[in-house]
Amino acid sequence: MENISPPNLVLGRHALIDLSGCNPDTLTDYAYIRKTLTQAARLAKVTVVGMVDRHFKPQGYTAILVLEESHLSIHTWPEYNYVSLDLYSCNLETDFQAVQAFLAKRFQADRSEFTLLERGCSRATIAPMASMPSGIAYPLS
Amino acid sequence: MENISPPNLVLGRHALIDLSGCNPDTLTDYAYIRKTLTQAARLAKVTVVGMVDRHFKPQGYTAILVLEESHLSIHTWPEYNYVSLDLYSCNLETDFQAVQAFLAKRFQADRSEFTLLERGCSRATIAPMASMPSGIAYPLS
Repeated sequence: MENISPPNLVLGRHALIDLSGCNPDTLTDYAYIRKTLTQAARLAKVTVVGMVDRHFKPQGYTAILVLEESHLSIHTWPEYNYVSLDLYSCNLETDFQAVQAFLAKRFQADRSEFTLLERGCSRATIAPMASMPSGIAYPLS
Repeated sequence: MENISPPNLVLGRHALIDLSGCNPDTLTDYAYIRKTLTQAARLAKVTVVGMVDRHFKPQGYTAILVLEESHLSIHTWPEYNYVSLDLYSCNLETDFQAVQAFLAKRFQADRSEFTLLERGCSRATIAPMASMPSGIAYPLS
């Protein structure tokens, strides 16, 4: 688990989950993918309040669940047996590693990469944006 | 900019942008937020193919654009003058820092935190999931 620059006020946590060597049959079965996301949301103790999905040509599928607690997304690359998932949850009871394990099992992944970051705001004002010259990148945290 | 564990095959890049000290008027004007996302997508050289949004009580708003190149999302916390954005793009021409600067300006943020990660798969199989005991977290990259 990587944990980068925790902000002063943590409002949620965000897991980036990259699964490689998946079973290709699981990546083109859209009902299976949607069911997997719904089950993952239940496991994460979050509430689904919306969904959008799109199919791409020649292949590829995106589905995103809107959560009361943020979002859960998937993008598939069947040509690489790869899926990319994000679970961003403001529920501090979410067990991200359990969700990762569940997803890896559902897609029969050979390899799972996982990064967990805290999301939130800082109450300190470091440098007002307005004082910076235009065209210059803002300082990176 | 932070760059964590680049996988062997990079399929996209993902920016996490956290803006604090925003102008509260910008966080409750949903048409303004949607227009901002549309403009950010254009700046990022990505194509919008879908959208979903939800309002929350007592406050808070989520909007997610589905892109041909992955997704662009926003979650607002007006009570903290904070917004959390993600731009995940498979277009290698996307200028993430330009998008960050644009978003910070549109929300009149005092502070902008930015993390950029590569997303993608590894062609190497490190340890088959099936060989691992159940109930044990998968190894983290």
